[in-house]
Amino acid sequence: MQHFLSVKDPIDIQGLVKEALLIKKTPYADKHLGKNRTLGLLFFNASLRTRLSTQRAAQNLGLESIVMNVGQDGWGLEFEDGAIMNGNKAEHIKEAAPVIGQYCDIVGVRSFPGLENREEDYSEQVINQFVKHTGKPILSLESATRHPLQSLADLITIEELKTKPRPKVVLTWAPHVKALPQAVPNSFAEWMNQADVDFVITHPEGYELAPEFAGNAKVTYNQKEAFEGADFIYAKNWSSYKDYGKIINSDPSWMVTMEKMKLTNNAKFMHCLPVRRNVVVEDAVLDSEHSVVVQQAGNRVWAAQTVLKNLLLKVMREESPYLF
Amino acid sequence: MQHFLSVKDPIDIQGLVKEALLIKKTPYADKHLGKNRTLGLLFFNASLRTRLSTQRAAQNLGLESIVMNVGQDGWGLEFEDGAIMNGNKAEHIKEAAPVIGQYCDIVGVRSFPGLENREEDYSEQVINQFVKHTGKPILSLESATRHPLQSLADLITIEELKTKPRPKVVLTWAPHVKALPQAVPNSFAEWMNQADVDFVITHPEGYELAPEFAGNAKVTYNQKEAFEGADFIYAKNWSSYKDYGKIINSDPSWMVTMEKMKLTNNAKFMHCLPVRRNVVVEDAVLDSEHSVVVQQAGNRVWAAQTVLKNLLLKVMREESPYLF
Amino acid sequence: MQHFLSVKDPIDIQGLVKEALLIKKTPYADKHLGKNRTLGLLFFNASLRTRLSTQRAAQNLGLESIVMNVGQDGWGLEFEDGAIMNGNKAEHIKEAAPVIGQYCDIVGVRSFPGLENREEDYSEQVINQFVKHTGKPILSLESATRHPLQSLADLITIEELKTKPRPKVVLTWAPHVKALPQAVPNSFAEWMNQADVDFVITHPEGYELAPEFAGNAKVTYNQKEAFEGADFIYAKNWSSYKDYGKIINSDPSWMVTMEKMKLTNNAKFMHCLPVRRNVVVEDAVLDSEHSVVVQQAGNRVWAAQTVLKNLLLKVMREESPYLF
Repeated sequence: MQHFLSVKDPIDIQGLVKEALLIKKTPYADKHLGKNRTLGLLFFNASLRTRLSTQRAAQNLGLESIVMNVGQDGWGLEFEDGAIMNGNKAEHIKEAAPVIGQYCDIVGVRSFPGLENREEDYSEQVINQFVKHTGKPILSLESATRHPLQSLADLITIEELKTKPRPKVVLTWAPHVKALPQAVPNSFAEWMNQADVDFVITHPEGYELAPEFAGNAKVTYNQKEAFEGADFIYAKNWSSYKDYGKIINSDPSWMVTMEKMKLTNNAKFMHCLPVRRNVVVEDAVLDSEHSVVVQQAGNRVWAAQTVLKNLLLKVMREESPYLF
Repeated sequence: MQHFLSVKDPIDIQGLVKEALLIKKTPYADKHLGKNRTLGLLFFNASLRTRLSTQRAAQNLGLESIVMNVGQDGWGLEFEDGAIMNGNKAEHIKEAAPVIGQYCDIVGVRSFPGLENREEDYSEQVINQFVKHTGKPILSLESATRHPLQSLADLITIEELKTKPRPKVVLTWAPHVKALPQAVPNSFAEWMNQADVDFVITHPEGYELAPEFAGNAKVTYNQKEAFEGADFIYAKNWSSYKDYGKIINSDPSWMVTMEKMKLTNNAKFMHCLPVRRNVVVEDAVLDSEHSVVVQQAGNRVWAAQTVLKNLLLKVMREESPYLF
Repeated sequence: MQHFLSVKDPIDIQGLVKEALLIKKTPYADKHLGKNRTLGLLFFNASLRTRLSTQRAAQNLGLESIVMNVGQDGWGLEFEDGAIMNGNKAEHIKEAAPVIGQYCDIVGVRSFPGLENREEDYSEQVINQFVKHTGKPILSLESATRHPLQSLADLITIEELKTKPRPKVVLTWAPHVKALPQAVPNSFAEWMNQADVDFVITHPEGYELAPEFAGNAKVTYNQKEAFEGADFIYAKNWSSYKDYGKIINSDPSWMVTMEKMKLTNNAKFMHCLPVRRNVVVEDAVLDSEHSVVVQQAGNRVWAAQTVLKNLLLKVMREESPYLF
C-alpha cells in the first residue's frame, strides 16, 4: 500500500478488516511504530469524527500529528499548471506539497468537491496532486469522490455485527436539506462490491451513482422492496450525479422509519454521521436497538489505526530495505 | 468524583486544595497516569488561559489532548429532543457526545450562556447533555453558570497567600463595557461559601447573584464598607441576574483603585483575567504588590491537573475494579 | 542566547550553522532535552512552513508544543501603556504575556507589521513587549522587521550547497501583487552581512532597505549586472521602506527568468516561500535544477531545532546553575 485513497490500495480488504479487529483488542501493541514520526493532517474542509479518530489512532501508534486547517490557518493553494499567480492563491501545490512532505512522514488530506463541475470533481485533482508532489504516503481523509476510511470502518462494523456469512446490505438514499457529495455512497458501494455481501442500492430515479462506483450492485427505485430481509440498512443522502450536484428530489417519504425497519431481518441501522434526525431517519430508529451508528463511528479509530500502521510499515521498509 | 461541574463534585474541597499544592511542588510525579489516554477539549467559545493551562496540566500527566473549536472547526449542534433537523444544525448532541466519548477518555466542555433566556442558561443544557450522552467524565471548562476550575485555582491562591486562618474575602462587582456572564462570580461564591473564609459580596443594587449561588454570604451595596479590613479583593464584572443579561448600571466609581485598596488589610488583588485596565481596576493596583493575578492564573495549571488526576483515577478504578 | 529575535542573539552564527548540519544528521539525539517542557506558539498572523517546521523541530526534541491562533482562538491584545480599555481589546500584554509565561517554557511569537506606520513597525512593539513581560525566552516566528529562523535556514542551505569558500549571493527584489513586509529581506541582509559571502542587493530605485539592515552590502539597480557570476539568487518581493509600505513600482521585467539565470554561475535559486509562480519567478526556473526552494524549506526544521535546543539549554542552565 503506497497510499490510501480507495478500495484499490489495500492488497486484501478482508485481511485489513481482520487486522483492524485485532488492533481493536490490543490498541497499544504497536506504540513503538510511530516513534519520531509525524502525521500531517490537512483539512480543506471541516471535520469532527475524521480528525478526532485519526488523531486518536495516531496517538495509539505513538505517532505525533500536526493539524492544518488550510485556508483558515494558511493560504489558498493554486492547482493549475502554468498559472500566472496574480490572484488570491498565494502558493502552488508544486511547492506546498513537497514542503509539507519535508515536515511529515505521512500526509492526510481532506478536500470536498465543489459540486459544480462533475469532470473536475471526478478527476480528484486535489488529492492526486498531493500524491504526485508530496513525496510521502497520502491518506485520504475524504476526497471529492471517496471516503475510504469511512468505508473501512463500515466494513469492520458489518464484520463485527453480521449474523450470517453473507448478509444483505442495503444502501439507501435519504432526504436532506443541502446538496451533499457522493463520496460516502460511492466509496461504500466500491467497498461493498468487493466484500462478501449481498449488496443493494436504492434511491429515487435520477440519483444513480456513477457506473464505476455502482458496479454490479442491484439497484432499485423501490425502497421497501430493498429493505425486505435486509441485515444492514446504510442510509445516506447524496446529490445527483446525472444532474450534477443538484437536489432533484427531496421526497420526505424516503426518510428511514421504524415502520420500514420492520420489513428487514431485524437490520442494524448505519450512517456515517453527522445525521439530521427526523429528516434522514426518525428518532425512533436512532434511539432503538437497531442503531449502531455510535459503534460504527467508534470503529473509525481502528480503521485509521490499521491504515496508518500499514503506511508506517511501508515507510520503514523503504528506509531500511535490508531489515524487511 | 464522576464529573467536575461544580463545587458539589469533589468530596472534600480542602483536600483537593492540599493535593493541588503538593502537585505544584512535584508536577511530573503522576506522568504515568495519562499513558494511552486522551483528553478531548471542546470549545463552543474562545479560550486562552483555560486551554493553555489545561493542555499543560494534561501534558504533566502524560495525557494527550485534542482540541476542537466547535462551530469553527466542526458543526452546529442540536440540543432539542425531537427536533426536525432541517435548519443549520447538522448534528444532534445524542450522536455527537457519545461519538466523542468513543475517541476520548475525559471530555472538557466550554459553553457560555446566551444571556437572553435565564431559565435556559440556568438549566445548563449544553454541559448537562454532554454529561448525559458522552459516557465519559465531563470536565467543565466554564459552563453557562459556573467556572469551577477557576474557582479551584482561586481557592488554591487564597490558601497560598492567606496570613490568617480565616481571611476576609471580598467579591466586588466592577464596571465593564460588555454584558458578561455570571459564571465566575457564581462559582466563586459557591466555593467561598464552602471554604473557611469570611465572605462578603458587594455590588450596586440590581446585581444580586442568584440566591442558590449567593447562599449565606454577606451582601452589601457599600463597596468601601466591604473593603474595610479585607485580606483578598476579588474583582469581576457581571451582568444582571434579575434583569437578566442586562447592564443596568456601569457606574465607573465602582472601579477598583489604589485609594480603595488602602481601606483593606493590605489585601491581595485577584481577578480571573482577562481584565480591562482602567475600567475594572486601575493600572496602579495591577502594577503594585497587591496584584496576584499572574500567580492566580498560574494556579490554573495545578487546579486542572488535580482535577484531571482524580478523573483519571476514577476511570482507572472503573476499568480495573479489583486493583483499587 | 537569551532570546532569538535577530542575528545579534547567537554568539556565533557560523557555529550555529555547523550545529544545525549535525542535528540534521542525527535529529533525535537530543530527544531527552524537551522532556516535561512546553513550547507556546502564538500566531497573530497565518503560518504554514513556520508552524509545521517548528512543531516538527519541537517534537524531535521531545518538547510539547501548544499553538494559539491569537485573535482567532482568543482575544485582541492591548499594547499601549495606560490605555483605558473600553474598546475592543479585552486583555493587556502586561497580563497576557506573563500568564502565557506561566504555562510555557519557551514562547514563539509571529506578528506581521501593519505597513502603515514605519516608526511603529520598526519599534517592534509586539515582540519586544513579549520579551519584556513574558519572563521566558522568546523565539521570533517572524516579527514586523525580521524573520531570523528563515535567515538561519537560508544560511544552512547556502553552507550545504556552496561550491566555493566565498560564494556570490544576490538578493533580488521581484514583482508581486500585494504590499509585503520587509522582514525577510531585512533579515536575510542582516545575516548575509555577517556571513562569509560576497553579498549584493538589487532592486528598482525606491526599494532601498533600511540602512541598518542593508549595512555594507553592494546595492545596484541593475538586476542583470547583479546576476552575473552569482552562485545564489535569492528572490523576494518587498514594499517600499522609503515610501513606507507602498508598491511604488511593480515592473514585471524584474521577474526572475531562465534567461537571467543563464547570466549566473549556474546559481541556485532560493525563495522563502510561498512564491507566486510566473509573477515572482517563472515556472521554468522553479521546475529546473536551479531551484532549491524545497530543500531550503526543509532546512527550516533544522534551524528551529538548533535554536530551540540552545534556548532549552539556557533554561536548564538557569534552573540548575551548579550542573552546568
